Amino acid sequence: MKSLIEAGRRFYSRNWVLATSGNFSAVVSESPLQLCITRSGAHKGTLTPRDFLTIDGSAKPVGRTSARPSAEARLHLEIVRARNTGAVLHTHSVWSTMLSEHHASEGGLALHGYEMLKALEGVITHLHREWVPILENDQDMARLAGDVARVLAQHPDAHAFLLRGHGLYTWGRTVAEAERHVEAMEFLLETVGRRSQM
Amino acid sequence: MKSLIEAGRRFYSRNWVLATSGNFSAVVSESPLQLCITRSGAHKGTLTPRDFLTIDGSAKPVGRTSARPSAEARLHLEIVRARNTGAVLHTHSVWSTMLSEHHASEGGLALHGYEMLKALEGVITHLHREWVPILENDQDMARLAGDVARVLAQHPDAHAFLLRGHGLYTWGRTVAEAERHVEAMEFLLETVGRRSQM
Amino acid sequence: MKSLIEAGRRFYSRNWVLATSGNFSAVVSESPLQLCITRSGAHKGTLTPRDFLTIDGSAKPVGRTSARPSAEARLHLEIVRARNTGAVLHTHSVWSTMLSEHHASEGGLALHGYEMLKALEGVITHLHREWVPILENDQDMARLAGDVARVLAQHPDAHAFLLRGHGLYTWGRTVAEAERHVEAMEFLLETVGRRSQM
Amino acid sequence: MKSLIEAGRRFYSRNWVLATSGNFSAVVSESPLQLCITRSGAHKGTLTPRDFLTIDGSAKPVGRTSARPSAEARLHLEIVRARNTGAVLHTHSVWSTMLSEHHASEGGLALHGYEMLKALEGVITHLHREWVPILENDQDMARLAGDVARVLAQHPDAHAFLLRGHGLYTWGRTVAEAERHVEAMEFLLETVGRRSQM
Repeated sequence: MKSLIEAGRRFYSRNWVLATSGNFSAVVSESPLQLCITRSGAHKGTLTPRDFLTIDGSAKPVGRTSARPSAEARLHLEIVRARNTGAVLHTHSVWSTMLSEHHASEGGLALHGYEMLKALEGVITHLHREWVPILENDQDMARLAGDVARVLAQHPDAHAFLLRGHGLYTWGRTVAEAERHVEAMEFLLETVGRRSQM
Repeated sequence: MKSLIEAGRRFYSRNWVLATSGNFSAVVSESPLQLCITRSGAHKGTLTPRDFLTIDGSAKPVGRTSARPSAEARLHLEIVRARNTGAVLHTHSVWSTMLSEHHASEGGLALHGYEMLKALEGVITHLHREWVPILENDQDMARLAGDVARVLAQHPDAHAFLLRGHGLYTWGRTVAEAERHVEAMEFLLETVGRRSQM
Repeated sequence: MKSLIEAGRRFYSRNWVLATSGNFSAVVSESPLQLCITRSGAHKGTLTPRDFLTIDGSAKPVGRTSARPSAEARLHLEIVRARNTGAVLHTHSVWSTMLSEHHASEGGLALHGYEMLKALEGVITHLHREWVPILENDQDMARLAGDVARVLAQHPDAHAFLLRGHGLYTWGRTVAEAERHVEAMEFLLETVGRRSQM
Repeated sequence: MKSLIEAGRRFYSRNWVLATSGNFSAVVSESPLQLCITRSGAHKGTLTPRDFLTIDGSAKPVGRTSARPSAEARLHLEIVRARNTGAVLHTHSVWSTMLSEHHASEGGLALHGYEMLKALEGVITHLHREWVPILENDQDMARLAGDVARVLAQHPDAHAFLLRGHGLYTWGRTVAEAERHVEAMEFLLETVGRRSQM
């Protein structure tokens, strides 16, 4: 929880989680599956322990709590199941929002030739081609969770995906690895976005 | 007052209230109407309690004070009356200034399709269409207050407006809600502005 | 001196005085004229009292010191004499550098229609037209000081000027007023620069 | 080591070493040649003494350590030998990445006319022409070290070079001088990059 709080503070200073956007989770139990996740409506730059709750594998709160989990809790669960990962981070930056709109009709965007790709787990050369899928945004979370599961299955090597007009989802075995993926992806998206303006 | 001071510090770190620009208020009494408001000329990044004063419903200082209220105090009062709100925040960013010029001839700009719209109170889907009215700037505050009242009546659902070449006005039931609206609007304006460069 | 140190720290956080660029001074005696000025080569983000020295009206150090004044000390003296001012601040931002190149052939650029102009001392309306002269850069400080004196005389209402490829000079009766002018000018230059990209 | 830690913190706050990118070294012994260098995989914004190790002139760790030196350790050694320098800093910013791609086919880019060039050691006029070589990126460090040695010999006056899609290398007699070169080069690259968008 402490590392999620600190990640939130850093993301806020970079304008990646303005206005209560974004949500974060970490696996606290694998069997049965339980996630520690940010509550709905919390400001991600000034999180405290009271801004977290524990949910089970069907996104229901565990124990007594008046807090509601982030609306996107089901997306976190789909990611954890599909990738067997330990932490999920969703950020909401200007560049990820812009590029998710700009490349929406292509269903994703490719990243290639950048040394920064090596910050993604398992990537060992800048010649790697990373496909970042873009999903249509949807307020129906059951339907969107299904879309996420399908896209993760179609792109088993993807380290992240974008929701259109909504930002970035990435993950890692630990919060530190997931935060490294956020920094790498935000860097790459800004670079690609600015290059398209040259 | 403490939450306005902290909001000012955060806005300054983001370059949204440079050079004493911007002004903030919060309702301290509803009947009779009284606002706590920043004094004219105060730097919004380093506010202290002495940079605030209380005004009544006609923008006159309450009690003894040598400070003058922000020149835009009447605009704050119009907003509080029209929206029955608890706090008003005016920021002055590069992107809000640019877009207020760029879209001035259209009288406003539309925001649509962005998840960040859900940070605006009462908005529940990215498919929401938010119209942000743009008013011509004016140094005659009585006349400008009239313009503000008219625009707020014409657009009863608007969460914010722009003054041309002058920046953003938004509000909320609490300072926290108003600050969330500032962050959301500044994010959306930067996103729209940068997209128009792609 | 304390206010110059703090201004330097703030400018550095905004990337306006990277790599020891920029220089600051304040009048410590009017008759005979003496300035407290940053030494040559000091980093402006981490100034200490030892990074300052006192110079007389011919830019010579007063008292024993091994430090040399900023190479641009003569420009500070010309400004103090021409404007009867108390503080001079030179910043070196990306946008001021870009615009000083972009508009060099016109000899300056005009700022008009922006509320932020009212942060310049004596300006009371956004309809004000501020002409910001641009001087060719020159490593011959005696010659450049002559150019500065001439331009200040030609434009008695100017609040600031640009050196081509070199950044912004502005001033004020106090360090606080000069810093407000820096913030206002950097805001306006960034706004004008970004608008030209739309 | 302390100055490298502080440089890392400052670079991180400017987004120049996101996601464990970048690496830093300082000469601790000239004969035999030994460098103190960041370990592979360390986050450069939050370095501690345990994130450093000492290597000899063939990039092998000195003493017992479980840490591996940065993959680019051989590049640092080539620079120290070619330039007889005391510190080497590699940063990885958006603008250096973009420009290294944009000008790759020309084999470098020229910087000319900017006062900021004088922040580079030995440069005394903005009329200086600095050629910044761009090398193709390569995961074979022995081969890339050979390329670096050849480019440094071909351009004996160069203060820095870019690796394509990978960022900036610069150096100095001290960490402070190398950091000044980083700030100057990042400023110049951002300025050149943004000007090409006007």
